[in-house]
Amino acid sequence: MIPVAAFAMQPLLLPELFPLDLRRRLSLVTRVRERVIDAFDGPLDAEILITGWGCPRIDADVLATAPRLRAVVHAAGSVKGHLTAAVFDRGIAVSSAAEANAVPVAEFTLAMLVLAAKQAFARSRAYAAGCWSGDALPGVATPGERGGLSGAVVGVIGASRVGRLVIGRLREHGARILLTDPYTSGEEAAALGARAVPLDELCREAELLTVHAPELPETRRLLDDRHLSLLRDGAAVINTARGALIDTDALVRHCAGGRIAAVLDVTDPEPLPAGHPLLTLPNVLVTPHISGARGRELRRLGEFAVAEVERLTHGHPLQGAVRPADLGRLA
Amino acid sequence: MIPVAAFAMQPLLLPELFPLDLRRRLSLVTRVRERVIDAFDGPLDAEILITGWGCPRIDADVLATAPRLRAVVHAAGSVKGHLTAAVFDRGIAVSSAAEANAVPVAEFTLAMLVLAAKQAFARSRAYAAGCWSGDALPGVATPGERGGLSGAVVGVIGASRVGRLVIGRLREHGARILLTDPYTSGEEAAALGARAVPLDELCREAELLTVHAPELPETRRLLDDRHLSLLRDGAAVINTARGALIDTDALVRHCAGGRIAAVLDVTDPEPLPAGHPLLTLPNVLVTPHISGARGRELRRLGEFAVAEVERLTHGHPLQGAVRPADLGRLA
Repeated sequence: MIPVAAFAMQPLLLPELFPLDLRRRLSLVTRVRERVIDAFDGPLDAEILITGWGCPRIDADVLATAPRLRAVVHAAGSVKGHLTAAVFDRGIAVSSAAEANAVPVAEFTLAMLVLAAKQAFARSRAYAAGCWSGDALPGVATPGERGGLSGAVVGVIGASRVGRLVIGRLREHGARILLTDPYTSGEEAAALGARAVPLDELCREAELLTVHAPELPETRRLLDDRHLSLLRDGAAVINTARGALIDTDALVRHCAGGRIAAVLDVTDPEPLPAGHPLLTLPNVLVTPHISGARGRELRRLGEFAVAEVERLTHGHPLQGAVRPADLGRLA
Repeated sequence: MIPVAAFAMQPLLLPELFPLDLRRRLSLVTRVRERVIDAFDGPLDAEILITGWGCPRIDADVLATAPRLRAVVHAAGSVKGHLTAAVFDRGIAVSSAAEANAVPVAEFTLAMLVLAAKQAFARSRAYAAGCWSGDALPGVATPGERGGLSGAVVGVIGASRVGRLVIGRLREHGARILLTDPYTSGEEAAALGARAVPLDELCREAELLTVHAPELPETRRLLDDRHLSLLRDGAAVINTARGALIDTDALVRHCAGGRIAAVLDVTDPEPLPAGHPLLTLPNVLVTPHISGARGRELRRLGEFAVAEVERLTHGHPLQGAVRPADLGRLA
C-alpha cells in the first residue's frame, strides 16, 4: 500500500521547495494530499508529514489526531521550532534537511572569508573615500596587508554541518585551520584538516574567526568582551550562525576602536534598530540574514526531503535522521 | 654540471615569492646567484632566469650579454611586459606561472559572484540605510530576489585560465553557465560544463556576467553601450580582468539608471579619480585591483616557478610553457 503524505508549512514556500518535477517524484512513492497544512485543525490521515518553515508545532494534542503518523521529514534545518519530545516519544522517525541547508550558508561564509582575508570591504570603502590602496607594484603587499586565505590562520568555532563544510573549503584554499568544538576530539579535528584548540588559543591565533555553533544556553555570548580582547590586531570576525553567540555591545566597542573588523549576517537583536553602530561602523559589514537557502535555493531542501521520503518508503536508512539525543546540541 | 640561475625582478618581492624553503629547493638543482637583478647592466652567466614583476625588458641587447641563457621562468602571469620576440627567436624556453596566478583571481571572482547572486552588497547598503530586507518568513524570497548561485544563469566571457577555473567552481555551485570565447568550440565548452553562445545571447540571458578575457585591441570596450543595453533588469557585471574590456562611460550610465549592478576590481582608468561615479553609485562596488596574488599569496607563484625549474633541470616538459604563437591571445 502506498503511504499517504501531507505537506505542513507556510503554503507560499511549496512551489519553490517542491517544484513540479519533485512533486512528481513524490507521487511515485506516496499519495500526497492536496491541501498544504498551515494549522492542525482536524484529523490527519498522513503516515508521512513533509514539513517546512511555518509548520505549526506538533505536540501531544496534534499527535492524538494523527494515529498513523510514522515519519516527519523536514525540508529545512532545525526541527526544534515545530517538533516536541512527544514526537520522539512515540517513536516517529524524524529527518531534517540541515545537511542541504548548510550548503548555501557555507558558500556565503566562504565568500565573506575570501574577501575579508583581502580586507576587500575596508579597502573598497577607503577607495570610495579617495584612498587607492592598490599596487604601486603588482603583488607587493601594502603595510599591514597579509594577502588572501592561502596560508591564513582561520579559527572555526563549531564543527557543525556548516562548520565542517567551511573547514573543507578552507582546506582547498590553503588556509591553516583551528577548531574549537566541545564534541570534537583532537583526532577528529585532525581528520577534518583542522587543529583542535581551546577557545582562548583560537582567539589569540586566528586572523579570521568564523562562528558555526548552535545557539544554546551555554553558547549565548560565547564571544564576550574577554574573548574579543584576545583577538589579534586586524582580525575579522564572521558570523553567519546566530547573533546571540556574540556579545553585541562588546563587539561594537572592539570594532569602534578599529582594532578588529566584522562581517555579520546575523545579529542580536535582529533586525538591528536603524542607526545601530554595527550598521554604521566603517569596518563592519552587515547583511540582513540572507546566507541560508532563499528563493530558488530552496529547491535543494526539497530535493533532500524527496530523497528522504524515497529512502523511507523503500526501507532504506534516512540520511538526515534526527535522534532525540541530538536535540540538545543542534542549532 | 648544475646550471646557473639568477633572479630578475623587483627585489622586494623575493622573500614572499621565494621563502627560504623554496630557495633551498632551487639550490638542489641550480647554482643561484645572490644578486637579484633589477637592471641588466653587465654580462649574464645564467642559463635560467627566474623572473617576476619588475623584471626589466629582455630585448636583443640584453640577450647579446647572455650567451648561455636557455630558459626564462616567470613567477607571475603575463610575460608580455618583459619578454620580446627576440627571446623566442633564439629558441629560449619560456614558462609562466599564469596557471598559479589564476587561482586567487578565480577565488575572488567566485566570492563576488556568490554574494552578488544574493544581492548582498545592495542589501547591506539598504540595511545600513534603515531598510531591513531579511525574512519576514525564512526562505521566502522578497520580490525581485532570485536566491543564490544554484540555478542562476551566469555568463562567462573568456575561457582563459581564470575563466576556466571560475566555470569549474560555478558548476560545483549548481549554476547554469553560458560561455563566449572565440577560441572555444561548442564541444569544448560543453566539456567544461558550459554552453557556448554568441556575446549578444550571453548578455540577454545572464543574470550574472563575469569577464575573463585578455586585453587585446579587439577586446577593448568589448562590453559597450549596446551590449550593456541587452542585459536583463537586475543583472550584475563582475570584472576582475582588465578595466578596458568595459566601456566605462556606458557602464556608469547603465548603473546610474539602477537597472544593473557592478562589482569591479579593475577599472578604466585605474585608479579612478576621486569622486568618480563608479566610486559613489550605490549599486557598484569597486575594489582597488586586489584579486590577484598579493602578499603571502605570492608563495604559490614561487612554488610553481620552482617546480618548473625542477622539471627543466630534470628534462621534463614545462607545465607553463609559453609559445610565441600564444603571445597574441594572452592577457
